[in-house]
Amino acid sequence: MLAAFLALFFYNLLFPGPQQLTPSEMNDAMANAMASATPRPPYSVGVYQIIQPSLVLIETETQGADGHSGNGLGSGVIISDAGDILTSLHVVIDAQEIELTFADGSQSSAEILVAQPENDIAVLRADQPPSIIYPAVLGNPNAMRVGDEAFTVGNPFGLYGSMSAGVISGFDRTFQPSDEKPRLEGLIQIDAAVNPGNSGGPLLNRYGQVVGIVVGIANPTEQEVFIGIGFAVPINVAASSAGLPPY
Amino acid sequence: MLAAFLALFFYNLLFPGPQQLTPSEMNDAMANAMASATPRPPYSVGVYQIIQPSLVLIETETQGADGHSGNGLGSGVIISDAGDILTSLHVVIDAQEIELTFADGSQSSAEILVAQPENDIAVLRADQPPSIIYPAVLGNPNAMRVGDEAFTVGNPFGLYGSMSAGVISGFDRTFQPSDEKPRLEGLIQIDAAVNPGNSGGPLLNRYGQVVGIVVGIANPTEQEVFIGIGFAVPINVAASSAGLPPY
Amino acid sequence: MLAAFLALFFYNLLFPGPQQLTPSEMNDAMANAMASATPRPPYSVGVYQIIQPSLVLIETETQGADGHSGNGLGSGVIISDAGDILTSLHVVIDAQEIELTFADGSQSSAEILVAQPENDIAVLRADQPPSIIYPAVLGNPNAMRVGDEAFTVGNPFGLYGSMSAGVISGFDRTFQPSDEKPRLEGLIQIDAAVNPGNSGGPLLNRYGQVVGIVVGIANPTEQEVFIGIGFAVPINVAASSAGLPPY
Repeated sequence: MLAAFLALFFYNLLFPGPQQLTPSEMNDAMANAMASATPRPPYSVGVYQIIQPSLVLIETETQGADGHSGNGLGSGVIISDAGDILTSLHVVIDAQEIELTFADGSQSSAEILVAQPENDIAVLRADQPPSIIYPAVLGNPNAMRVGDEAFTVGNPFGLYGSMSAGVISGFDRTFQPSDEKPRLEGLIQIDAAVNPGNSGGPLLNRYGQVVGIVVGIANPTEQEVFIGIGFAVPINVAASSAGLPPY
Repeated sequence: MLAAFLALFFYNLLFPGPQQLTPSEMNDAMANAMASATPRPPYSVGVYQIIQPSLVLIETETQGADGHSGNGLGSGVIISDAGDILTSLHVVIDAQEIELTFADGSQSSAEILVAQPENDIAVLRADQPPSIIYPAVLGNPNAMRVGDEAFTVGNPFGLYGSMSAGVISGFDRTFQPSDEKPRLEGLIQIDAAVNPGNSGGPLLNRYGQVVGIVVGIANPTEQEVFIGIGFAVPINVAASSAGLPPY
Repeated sequence: MLAAFLALFFYNLLFPGPQQLTPSEMNDAMANAMASATPRPPYSVGVYQIIQPSLVLIETETQGADGHSGNGLGSGVIISDAGDILTSLHVVIDAQEIELTFADGSQSSAEILVAQPENDIAVLRADQPPSIIYPAVLGNPNAMRVGDEAFTVGNPFGLYGSMSAGVISGFDRTFQPSDEKPRLEGLIQIDAAVNPGNSGGPLLNRYGQVVGIVVGIANPTEQEVFIGIGFAVPINVAASSAGLPPY
C-alpha cells in the first residue's frame, strides 16, 4: 500500500495533468471580463462610415416663372453599381441644371432618369460618375419596428454630410407637402433631425443599410424647419417605384 | 512500484474523469461569447410594445365664446383596471364632447372624472371602455436621474402613436403655460420631441413604466412647436392628485 | 495490483482534487451571466454627474445705446484649479455686470480675463470663487468621429443645468452668428438640443470630458431657437486661444 501511495505521488509529479479551473475561479474571470469589456462605439459611428462614400450633394439652378433664377439644395444616395442616384423628386423637379458632388470630391452634371411624383422619388444619372462607385446597401423597412434606431445623413442648409440620430416614431404616415403637390402615403416617421437640404438623403438603420429616402417634415407653421417630425419613403417603395428591383 | 504505476494507468483508463478546462480555453470561450453576443434592440422598441395597448387618442369638440366650434387633440394613458385614463387637463377642459379611441380601435365618449388645475391633470372615464383593458405600469419618478432615457408616445398633430426618444434634462422645473393658466411646478424636463397632440400622453422610462404625463413645451416664440424642451408632471403627483393611490 | 487499486481509491478519497468544470457547465454559466448582466445606465447619467460640479450659470446686465438696461443669460464651465471659467464671448461682451452662480449655490461677480472674438471665446475670473473648485476634465476633439455621442449641459432660457443628448453631426463647420460678428470656423456640429442660455456651456463626450464650448445654432428664420443644428468651438481651440495650455 505504501509503495502504491508513493507510486501515485510520483505519477502525479510526472504527469501533473492540465491546470484546473474551479467554478469560483471561472466566475471571477467572467465578472472581470464583463466588467472590463471595452464598450462599443455607438451604432451611429459605424453607420456614418458605411454610408459616407455613397452620399451625394445635389445643387440645382432653377428659373422661376418671372425669369429670376434661384438655387436649390438636396441630398442623394448611390444605390447601384451603375452609379444611379436615388433622391427626392422635389429637390430636382424644377431644376434647369443639376450639379452633383460625390464623396470623393468629384463633380458632375446629372439628368433625371426616372420621376415618380406619387412617391416624391427620382433617380438621377450622373454624366460623369465617380471613378469608384460605392453603392449603398439597402435594408428591409418591413423588418423595422417603432423605436428602432433611425439615422439620417444629408446636407441641411448645405452643411455637407451631416448626421442626425433618433428613432422610428411611426409607420404608414400620410403627408401633404403643399396644396399643389400629391399626398404622400405609407411614409416612415422619425424624430431624427432633418431640415431643408436633407431631402433625398438616406434614412438608415443601425447596420448602415438604407431603409428610406427623406422627403419632408411636419411643421404647422409657415417655416420649413425641424420640430421633431421627419418623413421618409420606405426604400422598397422608392427603389421599385423607380424601376429598380427591390432590395 | 511498477505494479502501482500500471494500476494507476489502468485506473485512469477505466475512470478517465470529466473533460477538463484550462484557463486559456475558458478565456477563449469567453471572448468568443462576448464578441458574438447578439446586440440587444434599443430600449425604445420594448417601451413602445409595452405601452402601446394602454394608449388613448383624445379628440374634443369645443365651442368658443363666439359660438364657433373647434376641434382639439391630445393623448392619454389607461392607468387602472377600471379603465380610468390619465391625461392633461388642458386637453379636455374646454371640450363640449370628448371622444376616445383605444389601441384596439374601439371608440367611446368620455367624461371628466377628476380635474386638478394646479397640476394640469385630469382623469377621464370612458362611457364604453375597451373589452380588454391594459393598464400601464407606473414607475418611480424619484428613482430617475438627469440623463436617464426618456420616451414619449402620443399623437402629435394627430399622428397616432408616435414615439420620441431623449433623456431627462432636469427636474423640479416651473412652467407657466399662458398668462391666464396656473403655474405648474415640480415638472420633469425632457429633450424628447413633444408637440401639440402629445399633451396628456405618457413619459416613460427604459422599462416602459409611466413616470410622467406630458403637459407642455417651452418655446419663447408665439409658435407652439418643439424646440428641444418638453415638460411632464411626475406620475406620483399626477396619480395622487387625481385621487388615485400613488404607484 | 489490487492493493494499488485500493491505494488509488483511498488516495482520491483523501485528496479529492478541486471540483472540476466541464465545458458545458462553463457555457451554461456564461450564458447565464451574460443574460442576467445588469444593463448599464446610459452614458448621459454619468456625464451629468461628472460635469455638474463644474457648471456655471452666467447672468449679465447690459445697457443699450439708448440707455435702457437689459439682462443676458448664458453658461460656463470651470476648467482650471484657479477657477477660471470658459464661456462664449457673446454671452458677456456687452455686459456691464457679470454675475456667476456656481454648482454649490454660491455667487460672485466676475471679470473678463481673456477675450477671443475670432473664436467667440472668453475666460472669466470670479471675484469670489467657490470654496471648493472642481475643474472639468478636457477631452480630445480630434479623437471624435461623426456619430459619437454628444452631450450638452447648460441653462437654456434659464432652466438651470439642463442636459441634452445627441450625436456629433459634422466637423469643420463655418458659422456666421450675425452680420456684424466675425465668422467662426472649424466648429463641431451637433444635433443635441441647445438654445439661448446654452451658449458658453460645455459639449461633452461619453466620458464626461469637455470637447467643446457651445457658441451657436443654425436657424434660417429670425427666431433663435433650436431646430436640430448646434455649433461648438473645439476645446483645444477654445483653451489655447484663451491662453491656456491645450489639454
